[in-house]
Amino acid sequence: MIATYLAPLAGPEGLGLLDDAALYTPPTGHDLVLTQDTLVENIHFPNGHYGADTAEKLLRVNLSDLATKGARPVGYLLSLSWPKSVDKDIWMKGFAAGLKAVQESFDIVLFGGDTTATYGPMVVSATLIGVVPHGEMVKRSGAQVGDDVWVTGTIGDAYLGLQLVTGQDLKVTPSGAALWAWENAYFRPEPRLLFRRTLRKLASACADVSDGLLADAAHIAKASGVGLELNLADVPVSEETIAWLDVTGEDGLITLITAGDDYELVFTTAPDNAATLHTVAEKEGLALTNIGKVIAGAGVVCKRSDGAKIDIKSVGYTHF
Amino acid sequence: MIATYLAPLAGPEGLGLLDDAALYTPPTGHDLVLTQDTLVENIHFPNGHYGADTAEKLLRVNLSDLATKGARPVGYLLSLSWPKSVDKDIWMKGFAAGLKAVQESFDIVLFGGDTTATYGPMVVSATLIGVVPHGEMVKRSGAQVGDDVWVTGTIGDAYLGLQLVTGQDLKVTPSGAALWAWENAYFRPEPRLLFRRTLRKLASACADVSDGLLADAAHIAKASGVGLELNLADVPVSEETIAWLDVTGEDGLITLITAGDDYELVFTTAPDNAATLHTVAEKEGLALTNIGKVIAGAGVVCKRSDGAKIDIKSVGYTHF
Repeated sequence: MIATYLAPLAGPEGLGLLDDAALYTPPTGHDLVLTQDTLVENIHFPNGHYGADTAEKLLRVNLSDLATKGARPVGYLLSLSWPKSVDKDIWMKGFAAGLKAVQESFDIVLFGGDTTATYGPMVVSATLIGVVPHGEMVKRSGAQVGDDVWVTGTIGDAYLGLQLVTGQDLKVTPSGAALWAWENAYFRPEPRLLFRRTLRKLASACADVSDGLLADAAHIAKASGVGLELNLADVPVSEETIAWLDVTGEDGLITLITAGDDYELVFTTAPDNAATLHTVAEKEGLALTNIGKVIAGAGVVCKRSDGAKIDIKSVGYTHF
Repeated sequence: MIATYLAPLAGPEGLGLLDDAALYTPPTGHDLVLTQDTLVENIHFPNGHYGADTAEKLLRVNLSDLATKGARPVGYLLSLSWPKSVDKDIWMKGFAAGLKAVQESFDIVLFGGDTTATYGPMVVSATLIGVVPHGEMVKRSGAQVGDDVWVTGTIGDAYLGLQLVTGQDLKVTPSGAALWAWENAYFRPEPRLLFRRTLRKLASACADVSDGLLADAAHIAKASGVGLELNLADVPVSEETIAWLDVTGEDGLITLITAGDDYELVFTTAPDNAATLHTVAEKEGLALTNIGKVIAGAGVVCKRSDGAKIDIKSVGYTHF
């Protein structure tokens, strides 16, 4: 199985997947950025989804962690624990196709890893290796009082995709475009890697929206020792999602910012970088939206357009 | 749980485990060696062993992969998938203590990782990062016809430890010393990291004995495009294991070399390095034994002392 499906995905660093370890020579003058994310069947992806979708999601969520750091991804190690009841030969072809698609999109190769059986649900884990010029990695901890808070792309599509995938009542009948956009956002989040040079130059802190916009903004607040003030009305949503918000209103929007799996970047930057960011947005075709300010204090507050603070009760969110 | 038990184990590379990724600046002029091994409850460790033993084993088997490459370990990423039914607060203290013990023994720190829940058995995975001077990593693929085959330490203690742990009939009543030696070999294999400078200097190829001495010798043979000829009578066994072999004879010894989990190093080297290796063995207190030759051909043959080839049927071995 390794020789058939995984060895063709390995770079020279993987030594043909015939060795105990991978060998990687980092470029001179660079730091390494390392991240590991694990997906568990029936928690992070639907029961029985052993194919390309899960492979894509695994790599994409890990690549998103590198995107938050302004890193260039180079390779990954992969741990696959397959349920004993599953015919791996059937599924591995699809899983490998998903890996290959992401490898080609983001110019990474397989370095190595481990495959095991398990008596339980499938568990897949990837360790991504990226590089940044020495000293230039973007941390969560650099937000300064007075900075603006920005977010890439749109928020909430992945949540609605999850509702579709799990057969929940959406309260609206989605259009064909909405079906595609939402499910795609859930299964194939777009790691914002092309934004890395701008991010390294301009961002004082960054996190990706995996736990939810509010929760991940709170991660920046905590790591930086500051507070974040977000304007609910400024949170960017897709055209498809607007139709859903027409029905669900403010409660719907609060659900979206407390959900997760968006894998957009939330970052802080000095206010005088706004013009540059608008230029980058236009040039790269990437929505960039100013959604708030860094303030003295702690935690995240969310305001209506009239300035009133919104009392957001903790909305329990399960990835899947 | 992360803040209480794991953050204290993190090095500066881990950024307090408050960030999306780890930041590591590799030493100039070095290559990186990367390896990932995963352990699954009820396959690689006994059901319900959530504590220090499993943490130690996880890091030690991964460190052994770095030892085979002649690498110096620097840090690791850790993925923990805990069964939902388990009280993590009870077990995490022991698990963290096991991690800490290994960190202190081998001078490594936690870089980061991921913790998730699972509906199935516990799955733990570690990605180890090591460094070697540029171009000096020992591969599996360098064995030359005419080289000798050597092995560190003794073979078979871990197999006997596994029999004890799983309550199998050993056919002998083990002494107290044997109980300790065998169980310790199974739960706390010793990665041969101190041997790395000698290995880098003298070894043409190396693998660690995880699948079994024969199977791992076969890995070297395959990667190097050569054959290996091993002398059964020369396979080193511990004093404790000799008593068991008195009862089980050649069949017992064949079981031991087709078992696994020894995490000793099997390596090849030119015959004129024998004297140097004997000196190192004495100086470092590490048994080093010449067990055979690299020959033209493919695969591994095992011989009796009269030169007769032994027909070894594939003995199925389950890690646990």
